[in-house]
Amino acid sequence: MLKVLVKEIKELRSMIKSWRREGLSIGFVPTMGALHEGHESLIKRAVAENDRVVVSVFVNPTQFGPNEDYDAYPRNIDKDLKLCMNAGATVVFNPEPKEMYFQDKSTSVSVSGLTDVLCGAKRPGHFDGVCLVVSKFLNIVTPDRAYFGQKDAQQVAVIKRMIRDLNIDVEIIPCPIVREEDGLAKSSRNTYLSAEERKAALVLSRSLKMAKKALDNGERDAYKLKELIRVEISKEPLAKIDYVEIVDGDSLNDVEVIERNILVPIAVYIGKTRLIDNFTYEI
Amino acid sequence: MLKVLVKEIKELRSMIKSWRREGLSIGFVPTMGALHEGHESLIKRAVAENDRVVVSVFVNPTQFGPNEDYDAYPRNIDKDLKLCMNAGATVVFNPEPKEMYFQDKSTSVSVSGLTDVLCGAKRPGHFDGVCLVVSKFLNIVTPDRAYFGQKDAQQVAVIKRMIRDLNIDVEIIPCPIVREEDGLAKSSRNTYLSAEERKAALVLSRSLKMAKKALDNGERDAYKLKELIRVEISKEPLAKIDYVEIVDGDSLNDVEVIERNILVPIAVYIGKTRLIDNFTYEI
Repeated sequence: MLKVLVKEIKELRSMIKSWRREGLSIGFVPTMGALHEGHESLIKRAVAENDRVVVSVFVNPTQFGPNEDYDAYPRNIDKDLKLCMNAGATVVFNPEPKEMYFQDKSTSVSVSGLTDVLCGAKRPGHFDGVCLVVSKFLNIVTPDRAYFGQKDAQQVAVIKRMIRDLNIDVEIIPCPIVREEDGLAKSSRNTYLSAEERKAALVLSRSLKMAKKALDNGERDAYKLKELIRVEISKEPLAKIDYVEIVDGDSLNDVEVIERNILVPIAVYIGKTRLIDNFTYEI
Repeated sequence: MLKVLVKEIKELRSMIKSWRREGLSIGFVPTMGALHEGHESLIKRAVAENDRVVVSVFVNPTQFGPNEDYDAYPRNIDKDLKLCMNAGATVVFNPEPKEMYFQDKSTSVSVSGLTDVLCGAKRPGHFDGVCLVVSKFLNIVTPDRAYFGQKDAQQVAVIKRMIRDLNIDVEIIPCPIVREEDGLAKSSRNTYLSAEERKAALVLSRSLKMAKKALDNGERDAYKLKELIRVEISKEPLAKIDYVEIVDGDSLNDVEVIERNILVPIAVYIGKTRLIDNFTYEI
């Protein structure tokens, strides 16, 4: 059996190079571990579309703010490994932070504009951390295709912009949100929820569903749609709105009248846990 | 005969990919055109060490400050093409600015620390522009080796740091400064000098030579060495010191007592033309 778990960049690089020499295509799925069915759907798609698939499960410290949950972030490498192998991944990359970052690291990669809104406005530095680690991974793995969950819709838009601006030769493939049966979007952070909070968390998908129905019925006023979502969320005592927005799907600029493809992203605290959800809508 | 001049990223990429399929190695020489014997030495070395060599002659607007010489910067594509062909380059890449930069470009690549000193202190944003364009070129050309002139010593240090921090898989090869017979370091900006200034410009190499001799004779006090250079330059009426420094060769941190490998970089205005020169010294 192939060695599945790789911890060193040098070792991963030499595997990649031997695949390249054989003319094999490479898919890449960057995750932070704590894998769930959402990640699994990315991996399976990557396996279907590429000869070799690398999954990274590195919990990237540079994308967490000083008061965020880096230490508490769920980690379960044995479970992750099993899920990756069952889904058909070739290699799971799990470097130590010191393998990824020199102590005197001094290079940053930033996308401006798109990162000033939504989660970026609430989590300063978050997307700089994401851009840095994704740049590094893409340089190490040199994939033909990289797979990202549409649940992190802003991340997808930011990474697409970075790829374009830096001429990185990779196809970015956004994959649909995977949900629990009752509608809650799968998230590694769902494990933080108590039983009561788990129920309350349904307000995210429920409110988005209402907005989508209103769009189907012809509502084109972004303010009214946001109000509809806000009112629904405010009915849930455990929920506290972080943001409810309607933005252009590419630029993430605010939209007032809905005329083209939009993204409707929301972030809501359920107790102390911050959850996000969204849908895209094509006119 | 092969088509030598390429203006589109897409076309260059398809050439690169066909070379890769044949298993050929690729050398890359990033320049801003106005090629002289310094560049020629880089190209010849790249030709000697690689199967295919790409030379870019793109005058990169993002590395010029608002009051710098972007418009006036010398351009002579016919002469450049001839020099590249004679030196054995495979392709000369000369994209239009709009081919390189989208109007809504929003991604930046920055190296902190190393860029706050020397030329970086005097030319804010310059190295951000350099890092951005070099990142893009490296992603487009995917060279095995990239060749940089040691005359831009800070640029070499910054690019090396960027490559390391972003895990870019390329070997950076710094090449020695090429000088006129009388000692003046070759530079595209030497064409700005009047006959009188051309003579005055010799003060750069002359003062560095004196410092090197002092080092050979055992001087280890950085202040005294800098003073020696400053005094020599101040004897030249057309010369105005921008900076005279002695720094660590990797970190570019100030050095007081010379104990290991150092870089001695200077920047001097000769009339309105800013010239730089340097030498490295190994203890």
